[in-house]
Amino acid sequence: MGIHSKKKGLLVVLSGPSGAGKGTVCGALRTYAPELVYSVSATTRKPREGEVNGVNYFFKTRQEFEEMIGEEQLLEWAQYVNNYYGTPREFVKEQLEQGKDVLLEIEVQGAKQVRERFPEGVFIFLLPPSLKELASRIRGRGTETEEIVRHRMSAAEQELGEVEYYDYVVVNDRIEDACDRVRSIITAEHCRRERFINDQPNWLEGM
Amino acid sequence: MGIHSKKKGLLVVLSGPSGAGKGTVCGALRTYAPELVYSVSATTRKPREGEVNGVNYFFKTRQEFEEMIGEEQLLEWAQYVNNYYGTPREFVKEQLEQGKDVLLEIEVQGAKQVRERFPEGVFIFLLPPSLKELASRIRGRGTETEEIVRHRMSAAEQELGEVEYYDYVVVNDRIEDACDRVRSIITAEHCRRERFINDQPNWLEGM
Repeated sequence: MGIHSKKKGLLVVLSGPSGAGKGTVCGALRTYAPELVYSVSATTRKPREGEVNGVNYFFKTRQEFEEMIGEEQLLEWAQYVNNYYGTPREFVKEQLEQGKDVLLEIEVQGAKQVRERFPEGVFIFLLPPSLKELASRIRGRGTETEEIVRHRMSAAEQELGEVEYYDYVVVNDRIEDACDRVRSIITAEHCRRERFINDQPNWLEGM
Repeated sequence: MGIHSKKKGLLVVLSGPSGAGKGTVCGALRTYAPELVYSVSATTRKPREGEVNGVNYFFKTRQEFEEMIGEEQLLEWAQYVNNYYGTPREFVKEQLEQGKDVLLEIEVQGAKQVRERFPEGVFIFLLPPSLKELASRIRGRGTETEEIVRHRMSAAEQELGEVEYYDYVVVNDRIEDACDRVRSIITAEHCRRERFINDQPNWLEGM
């Protein structure tokens, strides 16, 4: 009764403004959707106690990382505090070819690069329940000055404008509901007619 | 925290070749997805013991039904054994405007009419796990002659060609999985970016 399947996995990109709760939703998805593979980043920063190469990060030298950039081996990359961070294309590709869905949680600028280099991905924009809630999350983070809060708010508002490039919008009102929406989007994308016909060309031949 | 929503419901059309198990999946969905509203057909046949007007069917006279046809009040209709059957547009419209998702289970010819009259619907094509399984379901139904089985098989094969007009394909391998896929498709469709922006134009204004 098994379907002879050439099913390829999906690259699912979860992004959205800071304060939307990407990290929290992504963490909950590890429990809620254990069948997903989580993209592993490459970085030039030194491993911390207990971090495992290929699990937490792919640890690279600056030279190795710069070669990866030059050879277009990264779906996106950026530099923070003198270290490079990026998403290796190869790891994602291998998982997809094995039929596994890969989740990539990333901020808006990185997602933009991924969209250019991997437009066949499924792009999900995570939103907090309202702008007011976004403000209170940004404010509630700690003891930042009013100026920093205003700066972050204006950055978040700019990031919100990116919504128009995404396939889906998920409102993060309750974590479980947000997880269910992400999981549903992945299930539905596998059922899209074009994808079904690509993935299972042998259906009509009766296998 | 509530989102000021103008959310409209979705018309979800579940169709597919005979033998795919539309009725079984639809029956299971009543338990699995109780939030869905099931479209109620109009018919000219006489009510049977216990059938309630507006629940099981909208019971109409031939004259009333023909007026509905003339006034384009039906999303689809057909005549079987001297009785009319059809899907009243008004009932569907009312439910959608109340933000409810409506499920319409219908054979392939009827779905084709609905597609012409309500292209904004979400069209799901239900498939049995394989052609072989389809044949055995058609065969297994009873004591039909080989000729009737062959005739049904060839009709089903023709219906399969209609898959290209559908948005989604759901393989009915296990009832629960098929139900989960249908429910996921509905959840995902509500998250589509275009729909989110239409349904919740006030999000950015902070409500």
